[in-house]
Amino acid sequence: MVITSLENEKIKSLVKLQKKKYRDLDNKYLVEGEHLVIEADKANVIEEIFVLENEDIKYDYKTTYVSYNVMKKLSTMDNPPKVIALCKKNNKNEIIKDKILLLDEIQDPGNLGTIIRSSLAFGVTTIILSEKSVDLYNQKVLRATQGMYNHINIISMNINDAINYMQNHNIPIYGTSVVNGVDASTLNSKEKEKYCLIMGNEGNGISKDILAMCDKNLYIKMNDKVESLNVAVACSILLYELGR
Amino acid sequence: MVITSLENEKIKSLVKLQKKKYRDLDNKYLVEGEHLVIEADKANVIEEIFVLENEDIKYDYKTTYVSYNVMKKLSTMDNPPKVIALCKKNNKNEIIKDKILLLDEIQDPGNLGTIIRSSLAFGVTTIILSEKSVDLYNQKVLRATQGMYNHINIISMNINDAINYMQNHNIPIYGTSVVNGVDASTLNSKEKEKYCLIMGNEGNGISKDILAMCDKNLYIKMNDKVESLNVAVACSILLYELGR
Repeated sequence: MVITSLENEKIKSLVKLQKKKYRDLDNKYLVEGEHLVIEADKANVIEEIFVLENEDIKYDYKTTYVSYNVMKKLSTMDNPPKVIALCKKNNKNEIIKDKILLLDEIQDPGNLGTIIRSSLAFGVTTIILSEKSVDLYNQKVLRATQGMYNHINIISMNINDAINYMQNHNIPIYGTSVVNGVDASTLNSKEKEKYCLIMGNEGNGISKDILAMCDKNLYIKMNDKVESLNVAVACSILLYELGR
Repeated sequence: MVITSLENEKIKSLVKLQKKKYRDLDNKYLVEGEHLVIEADKANVIEEIFVLENEDIKYDYKTTYVSYNVMKKLSTMDNPPKVIALCKKNNKNEIIKDKILLLDEIQDPGNLGTIIRSSLAFGVTTIILSEKSVDLYNQKVLRATQGMYNHINIISMNINDAINYMQNHNIPIYGTSVVNGVDASTLNSKEKEKYCLIMGNEGNGISKDILAMCDKNLYIKMNDKVESLNVAVACSILLYELGR
């Protein structure tokens, strides 16, 4: 059987998952396209899959075939994919080990996804998203992670609670600022053993209150004609240095 | 006088500049918003400015006031800016000095803009865009550069001509590949003196033909669970290493 009607109740409930509100309510999200579905399969988070009619895509999950129009409705992309998976959110809430990246209100989905890839590449054990960050399960975020969000511990937490946790567990907190900053390339191995690196919002950086609670401020040595790097680039270079 | 009509001939000709074809024909482009206009002013590339009526924005250029609807039509953003400048393209075609970044068909405007900022930060003297790259004067590219495109030599060139140039000028060509690669952090100062770093397209990387012409392949040491970094991040980390 192929679902062809946009009025189908199941399709209508899946389309709602394009909004954070419904992803939070249902504790579920969609991933689009073969690459992300393969990664979600490896991570064992798939509940059900939806395949474009006449496509030969097989998984050991309940599979529903849909028409092109239905797939287009389910998808957030201009060119709808051949497969979409309904996945269960992994509502982790525990900080794992002590190489921590704390993202304070990152807004751009591409930046968050890119940072998740870099975090996995350079040994971060937990990513903490502050409350006003872009939603991890936003389709653009998932795409930019290339599925890597499944392989790293990502949790949501109030930023002050997170900072309290670091202070109680003797994890040094590193902010980013040129003023009174330390060149990140000069950190010694003890300073890289455990850390909580905080990266601020694209427009405003880290707030003054938060900066005041940092044990160290890091900076990246560069040409002074440039005011700042893109936040995903700056974060990745700092993690690269911390991971060496 | 305030232009309020979307049918105004001048407005219609400006709107055309949202397309590459017309930017190429007229040798002009638009920049949107105060930050980019300030940077274009510093770089002395502005011909004329367009200000939202009732806004108090003053420059020493011919200034035309426009209604909100006209500004909305001129702008590519959801929230139109208070000011737009008509600028002349800087059609440079000369390779300056010998720290060169060659971008082979970078497609994402955000990636190109981000790479331009990082290039300036880490001492690149010329960026070469291959023929099928996203257009430098695309509004999203300009925004992602935060105006930094004015402070670095950026040229367009056929990739084979560019490689010939490097070979004729004894500039070592560095590709990126894990196979037979060199850890970028192990480069010595002589190897960083002059270089042409090639970064490939988001989806496909550097083509085999081009890789075969590289003197060295660089890689970034990382967790092997991650297949690849975002191209702007990878490029920025390599330039960071080359700039040290």
